[in-house]
Amino acid sequence: MRPGQRALAEGALFTDQYQLTMAQLYFRLGLHERPAQFDYFFRRYPDYGAHKAGYCVFAGLAWLLDWMDDARFGPEEVASLRAQRGSTGQRLFHDDFLGWLEGTGDRLFGAVALRAVPEGRVVHPHTPLAVVQAPLALAQLLESSLLNHLNYQTLVATKAARMHDAGEGQVLLEFGMRRAQDRAATAGARAALIGGADYTSNVGASHVLGLAPKGTHAHSMVQAFLALGGTELDAFRAYADVYPDDCLLLVDTLNTLASGVPNAIRVFQELRRRGHEPVGIRLDSGDLAHLSVQAARMLDAAGFDQTRIVLSNQLDEIVIWQVLTQIRREAARQGVDAEALVRRLVYGVGTQLITSGGAGALDGVYKLVALRDGGDWRPAVKLSEAVEKVPSPGEKALWRLYDVRGKATADLVTLAHEEPAHAPELALRHPFDHTARRTLRPADLSGVEPLLEPVAGPGRARPEPEDLAVPRARRAADVAALDAGVRRLINAHVYHVSLSEELWRLKEGLVTRYRAGGRAP
Amino acid sequence: MRPGQRALAEGALFTDQYQLTMAQLYFRLGLHERPAQFDYFFRRYPDYGAHKAGYCVFAGLAWLLDWMDDARFGPEEVASLRAQRGSTGQRLFHDDFLGWLEGTGDRLFGAVALRAVPEGRVVHPHTPLAVVQAPLALAQLLESSLLNHLNYQTLVATKAARMHDAGEGQVLLEFGMRRAQDRAATAGARAALIGGADYTSNVGASHVLGLAPKGTHAHSMVQAFLALGGTELDAFRAYADVYPDDCLLLVDTLNTLASGVPNAIRVFQELRRRGHEPVGIRLDSGDLAHLSVQAARMLDAAGFDQTRIVLSNQLDEIVIWQVLTQIRREAARQGVDAEALVRRLVYGVGTQLITSGGAGALDGVYKLVALRDGGDWRPAVKLSEAVEKVPSPGEKALWRLYDVRGKATADLVTLAHEEPAHAPELALRHPFDHTARRTLRPADLSGVEPLLEPVAGPGRARPEPEDLAVPRARRAADVAALDAGVRRLINAHVYHVSLSEELWRLKEGLVTRYRAGGRAP
Repeated sequence: MRPGQRALAEGALFTDQYQLTMAQLYFRLGLHERPAQFDYFFRRYPDYGAHKAGYCVFAGLAWLLDWMDDARFGPEEVASLRAQRGSTGQRLFHDDFLGWLEGTGDRLFGAVALRAVPEGRVVHPHTPLAVVQAPLALAQLLESSLLNHLNYQTLVATKAARMHDAGEGQVLLEFGMRRAQDRAATAGARAALIGGADYTSNVGASHVLGLAPKGTHAHSMVQAFLALGGTELDAFRAYADVYPDDCLLLVDTLNTLASGVPNAIRVFQELRRRGHEPVGIRLDSGDLAHLSVQAARMLDAAGFDQTRIVLSNQLDEIVIWQVLTQIRREAARQGVDAEALVRRLVYGVGTQLITSGGAGALDGVYKLVALRDGGDWRPAVKLSEAVEKVPSPGEKALWRLYDVRGKATADLVTLAHEEPAHAPELALRHPFDHTARRTLRPADLSGVEPLLEPVAGPGRARPEPEDLAVPRARRAADVAALDAGVRRLINAHVYHVSLSEELWRLKEGLVTRYRAGGRAP
Repeated sequence: MRPGQRALAEGALFTDQYQLTMAQLYFRLGLHERPAQFDYFFRRYPDYGAHKAGYCVFAGLAWLLDWMDDARFGPEEVASLRAQRGSTGQRLFHDDFLGWLEGTGDRLFGAVALRAVPEGRVVHPHTPLAVVQAPLALAQLLESSLLNHLNYQTLVATKAARMHDAGEGQVLLEFGMRRAQDRAATAGARAALIGGADYTSNVGASHVLGLAPKGTHAHSMVQAFLALGGTELDAFRAYADVYPDDCLLLVDTLNTLASGVPNAIRVFQELRRRGHEPVGIRLDSGDLAHLSVQAARMLDAAGFDQTRIVLSNQLDEIVIWQVLTQIRREAARQGVDAEALVRRLVYGVGTQLITSGGAGALDGVYKLVALRDGGDWRPAVKLSEAVEKVPSPGEKALWRLYDVRGKATADLVTLAHEEPAHAPELALRHPFDHTARRTLRPADLSGVEPLLEPVAGPGRARPEPEDLAVPRARRAADVAALDAGVRRLINAHVYHVSLSEELWRLKEGLVTRYRAGGRAP
């Protein structure tokens, strides 16, 4: 695919066909500009198989807003739709509808009002993370791209937060471009950086995000020297000569402990004599706990007790946790200070982060919740077999409640007009288990924080793009405000997500009436 | 990210940082234009957890070639590298190296010779699927993007081939954009179409690929009618009015059998009276086997025994297989002809296809296998703990051997000069189990086919891009030439991948000598 084709395929046409067929139907019925509200939310934390997330980190919003700003039905997009044919050869999209699309001008989504949770915030299931109010046809045309942007970046930011937590805050490097799902390499690097990675090896993504990319050399460099009759030591020396102040050597091409680490130490000694401090070594195979303890012992003995030890090779949060556990059991026996070793470790994570190993998709959905009819919003529900699939109807707000310790204790979904911060008591209802409820009083709470903010709307200037440091700081603060049980890697405690009594009653009433009659009240 | 930023991030800078630091090192040592050979291969079929692939379908090559054609170090790319700083604030990349990069002109990879297996072909582990011969620095700069392009599309084409096979060749629709990993939606749609999907809902990808996108309406359309006081029947009628010849109705918004199917039948009858034939219904929740049998019974009774029944909702190859098994057990009891029902089914597959559910990455690697030294190619190997990780050294060819039934019986890797088609007998060695060998004689074989073809090279005009029908036809022919055991969804037979005796001896000799001395022979 050439760049021009990509721009066309991933602009306004970056959507599912049924959004267009529905939009034309609404246009035909005069419903296309009827104000509609759609909520974006997810139903389940990513489940990695052996373990499951207890929270997610919201990401993807800024790049969705960029996409919305640029999407338009220009001549090429319209020509593409004009050429579509139905089963009997007739044109599928007609000139009046295409004229309306073209008439939206340079900003197809200029009439879309969007409220959303800021990027980097910790989020939970069954809560509206992005709320769209827009003409019905536009809200529908936005759906596929909105889901695509928010689902993936939230998925990867979540995985990164878990790895960062498992690594106890040590530097985390994102290395996954080669195994990323195509151009997800770019968005995935960004999401990883929001969620907990410190740097990425991805040069293009780093450039766009204003960060320095990280990386030194591969096995192939050592192999090239060997193939030409040289040695691993020659390769390391060459690297140190070219990058004397950024010398990090990959030590497992031949034999880590017999060759790689001793050769690296020799080169580090040479570097130091020339006035340069080495950065570290990288271990990319074998028993990472054992090898890092042995390498630390050898480095310490040679006077390099500050050089970094970078670990890579199919790391995920569970492997990181296991390596740390093993180091703490085994290091002392080798005369190595386990805690000092842990604090010099750096984690290079590839496939498992950028693809969210074990859970390759977030199940985020975008549901019609209300339609304007005259002056009123008419709530919409979809009835399916499973009660947990019935979305909460109507125009809503989302709040985070903090307990007296300052820890987040529940996320509360209310109707838009409710004021939980000033309520004498709060009745919290489980989103779908009607027997589960809980009551909180002002004395139980240290704060009630609204989570949704307006981010786009007609006539509203786009805010300045945030520096990546801003969502990263939000993530750090929000993760710190979680109870330790919710942060667990396995068997995480269930964070409370609740509906207000008023919203619960509205939902229950609607479901009951629909089930009885199949018609709106 | 804005379109201009994306073009910059995903052009020549779509790489890992260490490719650039290594390239500068080679430049500094005068090794940057030394001819090198790198092989692309994978080590393991995708393992989906409960089941594992017995073959893969190669894809991604054409879009890699497009990327290579466009990649260049223009002023913006060079400025980005010029701005990079090392740990002490010094510039990381120097003007002489940047000048060399810029001097490669409009086609950074113009000097790269590439042989590869054609897209759509069935492929197996431990065989070279793409072979790069290029100046060392360029071969290294190509690595990350080559892996990114080939790993993902091969992964998804493989999953699609399994779903197509499980669905017994019925129409397969790719619906996964909303859960795709960001822009993998586009490449994933293409790979799915090569591997076995017939259409995609992705409008932009369809446009670029010259196919009609597929899609009709969502639950939200029915909900919108309900919210405004209308009924499901009103929604279906409206859809049929606008799309009388392309009427496919989603019947599970309220109650599939009590409301959706009867309403659809009523609308279909009205359509037929007006001279239009309905297309079908879609079931997107619940017990798909039970509901499709019941829906078929109701449609048959109303005279719509040809209308399609589209199944969707978290389908993968195992679910498709289970649904078919259940239909064959249960349909007759309901008075429905199971085989007739199976032949009217269509599968809409989303998340599990576009993300390759259960196995989100192919472990394809790109390994230095030889370097030119004077007139000779010097083989390179990497020694690691696991013998199966040692790549086969040297310049090689890849052949497919067909048995007397015309079935593919083995893929054979030889040295480039070997001629297995004319050998009096072929000794096949297992790639890493030295006790496993097999001998084939001309009478055992109906064909010996070379698999690698030249696709790019200095002075070589780029061949015309292939229509998607070409790789699709290759996939169909190659899957048909597999033994039924290899095509199994679970417990697939192991397809034979072999080395020639000569290649085996070369590899063994090199490993032995390196292990003994750590130096090239």
